[in-house]
Amino acid sequence: MTITVTTARERMELAKDAARSVGLLEDATKADALRAIATALEANAAEIVAANADDVARGRDGGISDGLLDRLRLDETRVRALASAVRDVAELPDPVGRVLDERILPNGVGLQKVAVPFGVVGSIYEARPNVTVDIAALALRSGNAVVLRGGTAAQSSNAALVAVMRGALQERGIDPEAIQTLDDLGRDGADALMQARGLVDVLVPRGSAELIETVVTRSSVPVIETGAGIVHIVLDSTAPLEWAQQIVVNAKAQRPSVCNAVETVLVLADAAERLVPPVGTALHDAGVTIHGDDAVRALLPGVVPATDEDWATEHMSLDLSMRVVADLDEALAHIRRYSTHHTESIITTDDANAERFLAEVDSAVVMANASTRFTDGGEFGFGAEVGISTQKLHARGPMGLPELTSTKWLARGSGQIRP
Amino acid sequence: MTITVTTARERMELAKDAARSVGLLEDATKADALRAIATALEANAAEIVAANADDVARGRDGGISDGLLDRLRLDETRVRALASAVRDVAELPDPVGRVLDERILPNGVGLQKVAVPFGVVGSIYEARPNVTVDIAALALRSGNAVVLRGGTAAQSSNAALVAVMRGALQERGIDPEAIQTLDDLGRDGADALMQARGLVDVLVPRGSAELIETVVTRSSVPVIETGAGIVHIVLDSTAPLEWAQQIVVNAKAQRPSVCNAVETVLVLADAAERLVPPVGTALHDAGVTIHGDDAVRALLPGVVPATDEDWATEHMSLDLSMRVVADLDEALAHIRRYSTHHTESIITTDDANAERFLAEVDSAVVMANASTRFTDGGEFGFGAEVGISTQKLHARGPMGLPELTSTKWLARGSGQIRP
Repeated sequence: MTITVTTARERMELAKDAARSVGLLEDATKADALRAIATALEANAAEIVAANADDVARGRDGGISDGLLDRLRLDETRVRALASAVRDVAELPDPVGRVLDERILPNGVGLQKVAVPFGVVGSIYEARPNVTVDIAALALRSGNAVVLRGGTAAQSSNAALVAVMRGALQERGIDPEAIQTLDDLGRDGADALMQARGLVDVLVPRGSAELIETVVTRSSVPVIETGAGIVHIVLDSTAPLEWAQQIVVNAKAQRPSVCNAVETVLVLADAAERLVPPVGTALHDAGVTIHGDDAVRALLPGVVPATDEDWATEHMSLDLSMRVVADLDEALAHIRRYSTHHTESIITTDDANAERFLAEVDSAVVMANASTRFTDGGEFGFGAEVGISTQKLHARGPMGLPELTSTKWLARGSGQIRP
Repeated sequence: MTITVTTARERMELAKDAARSVGLLEDATKADALRAIATALEANAAEIVAANADDVARGRDGGISDGLLDRLRLDETRVRALASAVRDVAELPDPVGRVLDERILPNGVGLQKVAVPFGVVGSIYEARPNVTVDIAALALRSGNAVVLRGGTAAQSSNAALVAVMRGALQERGIDPEAIQTLDDLGRDGADALMQARGLVDVLVPRGSAELIETVVTRSSVPVIETGAGIVHIVLDSTAPLEWAQQIVVNAKAQRPSVCNAVETVLVLADAAERLVPPVGTALHDAGVTIHGDDAVRALLPGVVPATDEDWATEHMSLDLSMRVVADLDEALAHIRRYSTHHTESIITTDDANAERFLAEVDSAVVMANASTRFTDGGEFGFGAEVGISTQKLHARGPMGLPELTSTKWLARGSGQIRP
């Protein structure tokens, strides 16, 4: 692998140029290219694992945590899983070219609103090499070029993965410049990407709340904000015990480190005596530490006192905050104050309260009587997930391939002018 | 009118609070409120015109141009026109509550993607009091609260208009805090609005390219970029003379100061001799000054030499740049370099060239054989226009009321958990 040193701007210009041809590729050509990438990943698994070993050794020497090391590590099985995920993306329907609106004006001009690729998709993310392949595959499937800036801790892995993917494109006669990495440029690469208005069409940060906040605040490229989830479940007065128990335990304990896991349970006062002890016991049985207010602690032993900070914390662990609220109004006010507008759910058999909750809670996904863990592109049937948008512009909630497209209006006339 | 001095942040918090109730209003209530605003504008026309006279006098003393003074001026006829435009917005269908996607998951959870108001819409614009009423009406019709920051030159007019609109809301029992103005806070008001992430959901700048650029660069609130149009028309080898002539003259001369007016005409070399003289003469007859390259000047007398700057200029006047290009490739390369991605049109009878142009040009609206002046919400049949988006995120091209909404997913279950 020869590396020519180029600046971030030069690489992004190459990506923009490549985006023109990639954006015009046929559905089958794009799907074929992804299958070629999957095959190349498998064929080069040994090299990829070797490059990854360098990163892992460097990380261990640098003292990064076991959790991060595990997310960083690639073995042959994980490379095969990456290739398989790329093949799944190849099977998804092409989001480009969909006709979203069509009308013939009174003067005879035919108008069509069609889905088109964004052009160049940028992504800034942390030291998880699977994201490198994931984002590149999703971007290419939707006709976009991609500029990647992963964590420097995964630099060797990412370089190997990008080289393999570019090689596969080149073999298929597709411009390999459609995949660019800025990892070797350090902070400068990230800065250049955030300031690349006119070269990069959209920036999707993936990772911690802090990383996303930095990108949102500093980027002049339009950003799709993803991720952070301080997710609430409200146990209404009528909440059936069985639903409350199984949904709260599932939403917290099934996978505590993800953004759609619940962080805070709000129990209506007139149901507290009935629900807090058994739901709390079920949580304890699942290994959950409950941080409760005084009312919760009066009803359940073994509860850590909740601090104000708890309500504003995404635990990402088997910790859960629990509070007794006077009524639905107080529950809604608590959610307004602390929610990150990701997902909230109410457990109730009172249809009026369910519908009020669905109408008034201002979050990407609002549920009645279901686990918050369902907020997921795969669960929603999208086949792949670009991320979960917590912003209101462009896309909200789980994003599939169509969310990596923009639109344009086509107008076909025969000499019409405006009177 | 009593003015209590409050900070920008306090006003935006009031707007956010008001957005909750305004977002839940019924279609008919919102339409009624707009009709009440229209009636109140007419009833208070004399006061509004008097307040406007202060602005006009101040502007004249300050030496602002006749053009700007004309855009600033309100008389009773213009106030009636404003009221009438508000009544038109009242008649538009409510964009809130539309079900955009619906699916039942295999586990029985019912999913619906519904259109919801953004919440708080902010706008920064120049000294045109009509925009104050226009944006407020569009925001309210789509269930949003609005925070306005108009040009200080229109401060008295805007204060009067906002007071009348707030009064009409109050009379109808709607929270008047849904309409806020920051005009009296000067630069601080604009700065606070651009930094109001979490309070303001989307910011729509309206005005000069410079104003929009400032907002896009400095805002941490998501922005919908509107406006600037360096618009191209390509005269293909097969362009019929009559279409070329009428479309180019219409696109330039019918209203030269608007963003969808053409700025540059590119003529394919093998059609230059046939088209440049008669199209140029028709433009001259319409009072247009042509800035041409050498090839154009060799074919047509009375042409000013074009400078490099001309290709990058939105003239906003009866000036037009004209260049002869070797072929369609060169025309497309010129457009890639200089277009602001607003609107481009090709005049041709060659279907392959038309379709290639429609596919390859990366602009909000791409036309074949129609005047670029059709890029307009009214012309597209949207009934009202929020602006013309030249960005790719969320909305592209003319924006109607639906573009002032976001979405949320509603999930209705019966105890489902994720296995």
